Amino acid sequence: MDTAYMNGLIAKAQVLVEALPYIRAFSGKFFVVKYGGHAMINEELKASVILDIVLMKFIGIKPILVHGGGNEINEVMERLGKKPRFVNGLRVTDQETMEIVEMVLMGKVNRQIVSLVNRYGGKAVGLSGKDANLLQARRRPPEEVDGEKVDLGLVGEITRVNTELLHIISDNSYIPVVSSIAVGPGGESLNINADHVAGKLATALQAEKLIVLTDVEGIYDRRSSEEEFVSRIRAKEAREWIASGRISGGMIPKVEACLEAVSSGVSRAHILDGRTPHSLLLEIFTDRGIGTMVTN
Amino acid sequence: MDTAYMNGLIAKAQVLVEALPYIRAFSGKFFVVKYGGHAMINEELKASVILDIVLMKFIGIKPILVHGGGNEINEVMERLGKKPRFVNGLRVTDQETMEIVEMVLMGKVNRQIVSLVNRYGGKAVGLSGKDANLLQARRRPPEEVDGEKVDLGLVGEITRVNTELLHIISDNSYIPVVSSIAVGPGGESLNINADHVAGKLATALQAEKLIVLTDVEGIYDRRSSEEEFVSRIRAKEAREWIASGRISGGMIPKVEACLEAVSSGVSRAHILDGRTPHSLLLEIFTDRGIGTMVTN
Amino acid sequence: MDTAYMNGLIAKAQVLVEALPYIRAFSGKFFVVKYGGHAMINEELKASVILDIVLMKFIGIKPILVHGGGNEINEVMERLGKKPRFVNGLRVTDQETMEIVEMVLMGKVNRQIVSLVNRYGGKAVGLSGKDANLLQARRRPPEEVDGEKVDLGLVGEITRVNTELLHIISDNSYIPVVSSIAVGPGGESLNINADHVAGKLATALQAEKLIVLTDVEGIYDRRSSEEEFVSRIRAKEAREWIASGRISGGMIPKVEACLEAVSSGVSRAHILDGRTPHSLLLEIFTDRGIGTMVTN
Amino acid sequence: MDTAYMNGLIAKAQVLVEALPYIRAFSGKFFVVKYGGHAMINEELKASVILDIVLMKFIGIKPILVHGGGNEINEVMERLGKKPRFVNGLRVTDQETMEIVEMVLMGKVNRQIVSLVNRYGGKAVGLSGKDANLLQARRRPPEEVDGEKVDLGLVGEITRVNTELLHIISDNSYIPVVSSIAVGPGGESLNINADHVAGKLATALQAEKLIVLTDVEGIYDRRSSEEEFVSRIRAKEAREWIASGRISGGMIPKVEACLEAVSSGVSRAHILDGRTPHSLLLEIFTDRGIGTMVTN
Amino acid sequence: MDTAYMNGLIAKAQVLVEALPYIRAFSGKFFVVKYGGHAMINEELKASVILDIVLMKFIGIKPILVHGGGNEINEVMERLGKKPRFVNGLRVTDQETMEIVEMVLMGKVNRQIVSLVNRYGGKAVGLSGKDANLLQARRRPPEEVDGEKVDLGLVGEITRVNTELLHIISDNSYIPVVSSIAVGPGGESLNINADHVAGKLATALQAEKLIVLTDVEGIYDRRSSEEEFVSRIRAKEAREWIASGRISGGMIPKVEACLEAVSSGVSRAHILDGRTPHSLLLEIFTDRGIGTMVTN
Amino acid sequence: MDTAYMNGLIAKAQVLVEALPYIRAFSGKFFVVKYGGHAMINEELKASVILDIVLMKFIGIKPILVHGGGNEINEVMERLGKKPRFVNGLRVTDQETMEIVEMVLMGKVNRQIVSLVNRYGGKAVGLSGKDANLLQARRRPPEEVDGEKVDLGLVGEITRVNTELLHIISDNSYIPVVSSIAVGPGGESLNINADHVAGKLATALQAEKLIVLTDVEGIYDRRSSEEEFVSRIRAKEAREWIASGRISGGMIPKVEACLEAVSSGVSRAHILDGRTPHSLLLEIFTDRGIGTMVTN
Repeated sequence: MDTAYMNGLIAKAQVLVEALPYIRAFSGKFFVVKYGGHAMINEELKASVILDIVLMKFIGIKPILVHGGGNEINEVMERLGKKPRFVNGLRVTDQETMEIVEMVLMGKVNRQIVSLVNRYGGKAVGLSGKDANLLQARRRPPEEVDGEKVDLGLVGEITRVNTELLHIISDNSYIPVVSSIAVGPGGESLNINADHVAGKLATALQAEKLIVLTDVEGIYDRRSSEEEFVSRIRAKEAREWIASGRISGGMIPKVEACLEAVSSGVSRAHILDGRTPHSLLLEIFTDRGIGTMVTN
Repeated sequence: MDTAYMNGLIAKAQVLVEALPYIRAFSGKFFVVKYGGHAMINEELKASVILDIVLMKFIGIKPILVHGGGNEINEVMERLGKKPRFVNGLRVTDQETMEIVEMVLMGKVNRQIVSLVNRYGGKAVGLSGKDANLLQARRRPPEEVDGEKVDLGLVGEITRVNTELLHIISDNSYIPVVSSIAVGPGGESLNINADHVAGKLATALQAEKLIVLTDVEGIYDRRSSEEEFVSRIRAKEAREWIASGRISGGMIPKVEACLEAVSSGVSRAHILDGRTPHSLLLEIFTDRGIGTMVTN
Repeated sequence: MDTAYMNGLIAKAQVLVEALPYIRAFSGKFFVVKYGGHAMINEELKASVILDIVLMKFIGIKPILVHGGGNEINEVMERLGKKPRFVNGLRVTDQETMEIVEMVLMGKVNRQIVSLVNRYGGKAVGLSGKDANLLQARRRPPEEVDGEKVDLGLVGEITRVNTELLHIISDNSYIPVVSSIAVGPGGESLNINADHVAGKLATALQAEKLIVLTDVEGIYDRRSSEEEFVSRIRAKEAREWIASGRISGGMIPKVEACLEAVSSGVSRAHILDGRTPHSLLLEIFTDRGIGTMVTN
Repeated sequence: MDTAYMNGLIAKAQVLVEALPYIRAFSGKFFVVKYGGHAMINEELKASVILDIVLMKFIGIKPILVHGGGNEINEVMERLGKKPRFVNGLRVTDQETMEIVEMVLMGKVNRQIVSLVNRYGGKAVGLSGKDANLLQARRRPPEEVDGEKVDLGLVGEITRVNTELLHIISDNSYIPVVSSIAVGPGGESLNINADHVAGKLATALQAEKLIVLTDVEGIYDRRSSEEEFVSRIRAKEAREWIASGRISGGMIPKVEACLEAVSSGVSRAHILDGRTPHSLLLEIFTDRGIGTMVTN
Repeated sequence: MDTAYMNGLIAKAQVLVEALPYIRAFSGKFFVVKYGGHAMINEELKASVILDIVLMKFIGIKPILVHGGGNEINEVMERLGKKPRFVNGLRVTDQETMEIVEMVLMGKVNRQIVSLVNRYGGKAVGLSGKDANLLQARRRPPEEVDGEKVDLGLVGEITRVNTELLHIISDNSYIPVVSSIAVGPGGESLNINADHVAGKLATALQAEKLIVLTDVEGIYDRRSSEEEFVSRIRAKEAREWIASGRISGGMIPKVEACLEAVSSGVSRAHILDGRTPHSLLLEIFTDRGIGTMVTN
Repeated sequence: MDTAYMNGLIAKAQVLVEALPYIRAFSGKFFVVKYGGHAMINEELKASVILDIVLMKFIGIKPILVHGGGNEINEVMERLGKKPRFVNGLRVTDQETMEIVEMVLMGKVNRQIVSLVNRYGGKAVGLSGKDANLLQARRRPPEEVDGEKVDLGLVGEITRVNTELLHIISDNSYIPVVSSIAVGPGGESLNINADHVAGKLATALQAEKLIVLTDVEGIYDRRSSEEEFVSRIRAKEAREWIASGRISGGMIPKVEACLEAVSSGVSRAHILDGRTPHSLLLEIFTDRGIGTMVTN
């Protein structure tokens, strides 16, 4: 055989070998992955994320995928002649909107992810928080906008997680794919922020890692004229940055999910750039990691 | 205590006691129930069917609920400005229609059933044939209409059932609720007749009973001027009646599901009137039964 | 089908459905039933109690039957020319009497109950406190009669319960039927009050319920000229009533068994009228219940 | 230490070591022991048999004790003024006699054996063929006496053995002690020859050995003027000896039990002299064995 | 982060992803690896082989390492003043030689491999064929040399493999490391060719793969003036090549081990060049593979 | 049969019966046996010890054999031209010596013991402290000799015991045979006193007994002119005797192993005379015991 080919092969084997200590350390552990952003739209990125998830499963990690689906919801709402409305970044969710949210998340987005996982050789089982009362929630209090309280309708925050079904499914070679819908006190569906679901699941499962995929590299420090990427931030600091506005907008629920997790027993939480191919594997199987890690 | 009250109570206890031989006989067995028709629309009937299912579960039977949802699909299609089209009673299913079918079945109908089961104290897990590749299918051949072949698009017939997930879920106190969607050879979603799904699941699980809920009392013999209700029919006879047109229309797939099941090891298949409250319990827990039983 | 028949059926189904919440709540729990009185003599009542027990077993409850058998013992003693003698309601038990007690309880009464359970489709296993040293006891102190102490001979009070065998039998689809005989420190048989056995077993198994079947409706308040039925009594009150004589005679050991149980972790104890057909089911599966409930 | 003492000890250890190959071979195997004769009366012999049984259990064998109790039955019958009657060595068993048989066997003899086993450190569970329908039987045909048929009443022969309960009990450190009573087609008790019970149990459990304890050394060849002890006999020969009368009387059912066993998969059947202390251990743990071995 | 770094990382992730289908296919399967040659001497190669083995274990494969150790044996023999002697490539093994063989293989070579596996994060358990009688053998017949028969002494060929211990160890996260020593009919140690041991183990375990590491690239076709590497050979052909001498010398036992395996249910057997770093991973996780594959 | 023969048999059975209470008490318990001295050299004693161990295993005890092998090591060292050197009774162990130690212990002594156990019907698995990192150790501090510190080289003391592998092996019908070699912090082999290994294993397994076989009857009190055998000594006293020199030489590590064990939860530790045949059985199965018992 020719030497160049062999050297190429050997370099490949080397990569596998480098992954060994991580495989060893993470065997049998839960990893909760919040899936979203470009990684859920771009075909190549989708394949990359899902392959990473399936690989995790086969080498002994127990991944749980959590997803929302804001864009698809908006699109279907508009086709049905209904105008999406947001308050402080949260969707105002009347009964009709909630039906559309549920239809799109479980009937479309969840199905597509399940299909993708199966296509790449995994065995996915799609779930929402209603299945076996997995996610129980109460309604969020009204939001304050310009001094007035605006009721968000069927928007909730999680009060209880029944992990039994996730254990059974994860122990039996399946990969759970969870839509961000919970069940309210009266059995009604409640719309939940998917970052929040991921944080709560990671906590309830005492996951090894919570990983939030997003469309930026991670947290940036915006004080200086030139933004500076932050590869690691302590929980205390992150809370201060949210309070002082240095972390803002859509990054807030992501960081809050991480804070929820690391303050309740999850070892590490990461905000990763879903636009980087195989960012999950890179985070898991290399020393330096990528993205921002939130720790206690 | 007053005697009338006590006599009322004793009569009630008597009913429970009469159920005992059936409880004994059916303990640990799978019952596949095709849920549809009025029993899926009328609030009281819904409660009645679901309570029956939850009761079955608690006394040791393993029920599996299978559902379609034609009306809801039509309704959403129309709201989205798309006209449903049928050939020989089968929905012509292009890509866009399939997306709506999946969205409505898994995102709406399935969710409602899961909610109902949970409300009545069961623990439901909603599934479609895509979860863990539960139902695998190929496309149906084109239908003949007036000598011409009409392609039905993404309409399938089941080729393989992976029962493992249903066993795990049923063995662990959960009730599976299955949407009539399968996965095609290329990973695409296929629209399947729900009666057909129920028949295939009953066969694959070697269920004790297949029960098809519908909006008539059962099979009628329409030869005579006065229709006559048929409480029991042999498979051979049923096949002849289909061939000769004495069984026709929407009753055909229901009878075919029953034939599929009883010819492959399922003990008994029943076509029940879903409009009768608690028709499931009556069929299961009384000697005389109701509806039409199809046997080998 | 005719409507009257259908309505009858539907009413029946309704009864099953009403039982559901109780089935759900009691699934997997131990119920210790002290069987005695008319319910052990009258053929119809016997069938009614045993059917109730078998039904409990099949819907997931773990019933344990405890029995004595005073009348049968007296009868055989008399046939053998031996005169029964009682002190303060307790049988004076010499060696020969003990042999007759054991022969009658395990060789006759227990056998009849085992047969009955089997006839109605259960699988009974008869046990006395000697099997696997299930019930260990010491001798009761002498009774005081008119200021003198009278030795009761081989009459005991339970000091230890080995529940392992009951767990194994109950977990394996069998119904234990326990005779009220224990084993003394020297291996000798000791005669034990069956109410006391039931109370101790309920405690040791941390049963959900202790149910004592007797030949009255429950506890009566006998202060007033007209006796008044008491449907619920607190442990503290019951102790006072025993002390003050408002509860007396054969009712004392029954109430004491209930007190023993509810003071040691058993949720509820009931004194039921065994003369009412299916009184067990009525107590278990209806809200109002019947008989007297003793609670903490 | 003094040498004589040490040599004594060493000789003892040698005995244990000699037992090793037998312990190895019999580990986990069922041994069915028909217990009767002097070994059930004489205090020392009782202790000797029971100790042997308990020892077997602790070193990994699964012993099952089977017993009858003719003498005790006669005695109680006479005390109750009822005259025992036998036809061809079989007890004529009317309803009243059957009740006495059951009372004596399960309420007296079985209890004594259970107590003995417990006293010597085993954990016995007493059973009759009625417990969990362990032994099912039909009535024996009438006996011919002087050309006339005499109905034996409630005397049976076993048609079915439910071994499940014996497996559960034996797998859980308990020793089953089985009375020779079976359940008839109508649920009635039937009186069964205990040798026959032992043979049927050994067969159903595919026991390693059936051992029948009796009051003679084994089978004797009575042709010659001097009787000659037979240490081993083939099944075919034994059948001929029964036919020709060389084996007769109470030895017949014992040999028939052995024949039943060895013709249905039991490795070896033995007729042992229960008058020899520790005859069970000697048979099991020495090469030469004692008594008569029946083989295929 | 800088792009070059990220691209490097992504290329690495790609390698992991490419391994996925192989991980999936080989999960839970036994791989028997004959370890020897340079890969057992050169420090880097040693690390490379052992890392590959540990990686296999962690991703769900069950590797079994088999080793000999000719050079180390020769060396110790010489230090002890004993001259190694070979007949037809087989070591003549007298009693003293056998003791040295055992001492060196189990006390030195096996220990070093166990240490290496442990150092790289695996958990190795060293075994020889004597442990739990894992490998049972008889003596080989004498070799013919120049028409004379030469007795090889304590050299054996395997007659029976007890796989139970290997299953227990492999199912419990340990990696068995097996020395090529077997136990003879009289309990004596027998010297066995390690290739032969590997072939027999692969057969007995119905391994997915047998992999023989050696110091050449694989099988060469030596007919032509220029040797040609053979990447795949059928069993029938391989047998002919041995017969005709086209395969010769030390390659013969390696090919014979492969033939033994593939003719008895092992899917594939490979002769790999142990001098290539990570040749095991390359063989397992790439499509093209390296070395020579022997198939049926 | 003749009476003398029978009496002999009965006496034998009596011995088995006397063993019963000990069998009962020790069932399922670990016994760690330090094997050494004459019992490892003399053929008859070897057979006697090994038979005792195999017998223990078959009657439900879990024996673990621990061995060193000083004499064999010296012998091979000398054959290899290397002079053994000791400081305060401890072998000075350079790298080359360590290799010889390991080769002799695991490759020779351990193999012989494994063979013996197998020959007598047990199933032995040979292990050193390196297998699965069973025994982890650090280097011993230098010894003081005449005021100077002498480095012992690769001599260690145990810091951690991984009992998992011993549990798996012992629970699966195998007998572990452990060489006194541990693994150091850098993965290097360390030479450990075998008494020390036995004490540490007994502690880590919370063994029922630690038994140290040696070549004297036990501990002697050497104060008086006539030595006096001590059959029982308290830990406190034993520590004083070591401090004061009344226990000295090779007896010190044996007593220290016993002290280590009894101070950490092991019920009893014994120093036995391995020159007495079956001394293990005698210690275990007789009341009086032999040797010296060390207790808390």
